[in-house]
Amino acid sequence: MAFDPQSLRYDDKGLIPVVAQDHASGEVLMVAWMSAEAVARTLQSGRVTYWSRSRQAFWVKGESSGHVQRLVELRVDCDRDCLLVLVEQTGPACHTNRRTCFYTAVRRGNEVELMRPEV
Amino acid sequence: MAFDPQSLRYDDKGLIPVVAQDHASGEVLMVAWMSAEAVARTLQSGRVTYWSRSRQAFWVKGESSGHVQRLVELRVDCDRDCLLVLVEQTGPACHTNRRTCFYTAVRRGNEVELMRPEV
Repeated sequence: MAFDPQSLRYDDKGLIPVVAQDHASGEVLMVAWMSAEAVARTLQSGRVTYWSRSRQAFWVKGESSGHVQRLVELRVDCDRDCLLVLVEQTGPACHTNRRTCFYTAVRRGNEVELMRPEV
Repeated sequence: MAFDPQSLRYDDKGLIPVVAQDHASGEVLMVAWMSAEAVARTLQSGRVTYWSRSRQAFWVKGESSGHVQRLVELRVDCDRDCLLVLVEQTGPACHTNRRTCFYTAVRRGNEVELMRPEV
């Protein structure tokens, strides 16, 4: 069946959450949002393109930082209201310069920093 | 630093998106939502507990199906507006009886079913 970005279920702001996972290591790198047009641009360009809620603009990941995400595969969940992108990540995915945005663990009720920013 | 569920950033419905990942295989299983109280219950019980948007009720994953998620670790992202739970998943995570909700890939513009329901 041909895939149509319009067939996904977007929230009341026209956005869908997207989990980015390193295709090789399986590490979950970040979660961001896409509009239907961002989904289409991602598939067409092979460069993962989100919708920035803070800037209200397309966000070609890594466009300014160089920390690009090359799309390896896009997957859709059962309810069609969430996406998973398997990516080849150049450099750190997080704006704090850490490999992943999920660098804080909760252990025995305390927050633990799992990794330092890359230098 | 002590972790406080109230310190997270919830959306205008009081919810935060949660990515569930198999702690051993690294497979991304599903994405669902938690309220602050669901976060607290998950940490306290060790049983992953979401907030069901369709039922508007707490959803102890697997309570009716037996397909429970035991919490291995909870992680917080850099913006504190998304969570990652590493889980030990009993049975399939998806309500369609598939291992993961992300069983549909988009390849060359077409949707491809990656796995069948478990029997």
